[in-house]
Amino acid sequence: MSDVRSGDGRVLLSPGQESFLAASDGLDTPFLVLDLDVVAERYAALRAALPDVAIYYAMKANPAPEVVTLLDRLGCRFDVASPGEIARCLELGIAPERLSYGNTIKKERDVAAAARDGVRVFAVDCDAELDKVARQAPGATVYVRLATDGAGADWPLSRKFGCGPGEAAKLALHACHLGLRVGASFHVGSQQRDPAAWERPLADVADLFDGLVAAGGVPAGVNLGGGLPSTYVPTTPGVAAYGATITELVARHLGRFAPIPVLIEPGRYLVGDAGVIESEVVLISDRDVDPGRRWVYLDVGLFNGLTETLGEAIRYRLRTPGDTGRCGPAVLAGPSCDSADVLYEQAPRHLPVDLRIGDRIQVLATGAYTTAYASVWFNGFEPMPTYVIGSPEAPAG
Amino acid sequence: MSDVRSGDGRVLLSPGQESFLAASDGLDTPFLVLDLDVVAERYAALRAALPDVAIYYAMKANPAPEVVTLLDRLGCRFDVASPGEIARCLELGIAPERLSYGNTIKKERDVAAAARDGVRVFAVDCDAELDKVARQAPGATVYVRLATDGAGADWPLSRKFGCGPGEAAKLALHACHLGLRVGASFHVGSQQRDPAAWERPLADVADLFDGLVAAGGVPAGVNLGGGLPSTYVPTTPGVAAYGATITELVARHLGRFAPIPVLIEPGRYLVGDAGVIESEVVLISDRDVDPGRRWVYLDVGLFNGLTETLGEAIRYRLRTPGDTGRCGPAVLAGPSCDSADVLYEQAPRHLPVDLRIGDRIQVLATGAYTTAYASVWFNGFEPMPTYVIGSPEAPAG
Repeated sequence: MSDVRSGDGRVLLSPGQESFLAASDGLDTPFLVLDLDVVAERYAALRAALPDVAIYYAMKANPAPEVVTLLDRLGCRFDVASPGEIARCLELGIAPERLSYGNTIKKERDVAAAARDGVRVFAVDCDAELDKVARQAPGATVYVRLATDGAGADWPLSRKFGCGPGEAAKLALHACHLGLRVGASFHVGSQQRDPAAWERPLADVADLFDGLVAAGGVPAGVNLGGGLPSTYVPTTPGVAAYGATITELVARHLGRFAPIPVLIEPGRYLVGDAGVIESEVVLISDRDVDPGRRWVYLDVGLFNGLTETLGEAIRYRLRTPGDTGRCGPAVLAGPSCDSADVLYEQAPRHLPVDLRIGDRIQVLATGAYTTAYASVWFNGFEPMPTYVIGSPEAPAG
Repeated sequence: MSDVRSGDGRVLLSPGQESFLAASDGLDTPFLVLDLDVVAERYAALRAALPDVAIYYAMKANPAPEVVTLLDRLGCRFDVASPGEIARCLELGIAPERLSYGNTIKKERDVAAAARDGVRVFAVDCDAELDKVARQAPGATVYVRLATDGAGADWPLSRKFGCGPGEAAKLALHACHLGLRVGASFHVGSQQRDPAAWERPLADVADLFDGLVAAGGVPAGVNLGGGLPSTYVPTTPGVAAYGATITELVARHLGRFAPIPVLIEPGRYLVGDAGVIESEVVLISDRDVDPGRRWVYLDVGLFNGLTETLGEAIRYRLRTPGDTGRCGPAVLAGPSCDSADVLYEQAPRHLPVDLRIGDRIQVLATGAYTTAYASVWFNGFEPMPTYVIGSPEAPAG
């Protein structure tokens, strides 16, 4: 049981994270503590919130083998982005039919290799990609990705992925003619704060499916993408609220196609809160080039774990010593010689006024999109280690 | 001999890069080809342009052991950012007195370890950092870092480093009282297009030294930082122009302190043009969500080598098949599932209209700040390999 809570603004860790950190004085920072019990708890909560939806873990969020193995035991499936992720899943004994190759940007030889391995589900958003799948994986299922505007998401969405309803309809028909099974997918943007963000794309999917059915096709399924949140600043509704809203929206828009497979691809939601990065304050300064502003430099930064502070997009909760005392604003920066390695400056953080060099600061909910995105040897800093804690046994299959 | 040229806008590779790539069809992309002959040539050119200046290679730009060893043989010294970089230099047989610990953000125990290893030069920009050096490396030399505004540089400078003239003067005197030797340093911003950018900080250094001398101190040296350019778009003056301007400015502003040691810390300049990344076009699409715009997706992106396209700051030259043919605009993006992994969108690139999926594109002048900044396993993509070519023997010591 974990007591990482959402919505109350309090800074809390899981019991496992707490006890690991309490005994971690001898460990060099930075490091990530990843609690499998929290992953299992999140999976169970999502399972309960969306009982009829097939969960595909977006393993790019954290591909640690312990996480993948635990989720496999829990019955989870996997959204994979590359040949490397497919290989890892297969090595861990996961059946290829439990994988969805969700990247819309694939080399044709990688599509071929995935098909040879037994992968049968692919995402596409344009004709060229559809043709690759048709050539290399005949009879497979393609999910045509619809674009969304990403409104309400903390990690910005670009026009890199997806197509509009008109192009999607053409793609779907073309896929049918190529002998492929056709579903629809979309992504409402990562760390999506508004459960209602699923409404508009679900309406688009319904239109797409109407056209498909009218042409004699059978929709293969809908993939609701990712977007479920971790516990950052600001707070978000709990997963039950997302589940209720999404269930209602799916019923309203896609009820006429029932029964239809519904998939979801959480990454951040399942592993974000399971992680905490322990870091050390390397330097505190108040220089005349930025008068009256305190700069706090940590040993973790943009290039060795906190990539998602880019543009100050993800606002991690912090736990500091003396959190009960008086606080004041501070710019937070990483340890490297790179000027871009500044974490929070436009919106400074509030840190204890008596914070000192050598103090340890915990960066909470850092289980997702941290260690896998860290640099190989940026400025001569080794990638931080991950200490995996909690039970690797699934409480229920 | 390399014929990578600056200033003429032409896309050219070194003979070594050309012949390696001509025989590279069997190699999986992406990969980096790094030509030691270009590094040696750049070192010689800089040596000639600034004959009286001690060159410290900012090894964060590319810490490949072959590069470090070659530059050591050529007589170069090294700017290091971390214990990891110090360890690599020492392992490669470089004497510790040839290192400058140029990061202003250092753990006190790392300062202590560096001092035990024999490192005697440290950068500081505030009292707390100065105190660490005074405690752990008594009698060492500190370079007080002055802030600059970074105008004219392509990679943005923040207020993360440096202090103003007033605070620097106090720091310098404080350092004297603590028994340290005192120099001054600054950084005009990476990929600095204007040689005159060195003027204002050199004037500040002169003022600082005047104060130091008046208080009975002796300036230990001036560190001109980095900023010398690689050959990107847009073009920059040649290194001889930088050398002439900087030599004149140093004489004008610091002549009255002569003889004084002058250091420079090129990273990008020495290795940037030595590298070329070979990549493959994974997908080309023209979707209705961005009507009329061609999106070209490469197998190298923001997270596996082209970090410096962040904010479209560094504009790499590209070489494509059919460069003699008709070109049109294209948004360039990386291969990952991450929406942020878009390389050039605000200012699209001009690429051949007949560019096709599977074509190879060379990203030029990618020897600096690429492989060392790449992610460990982003989206399941392995870090790209580096193929080192050229002579490891220094033509002259």
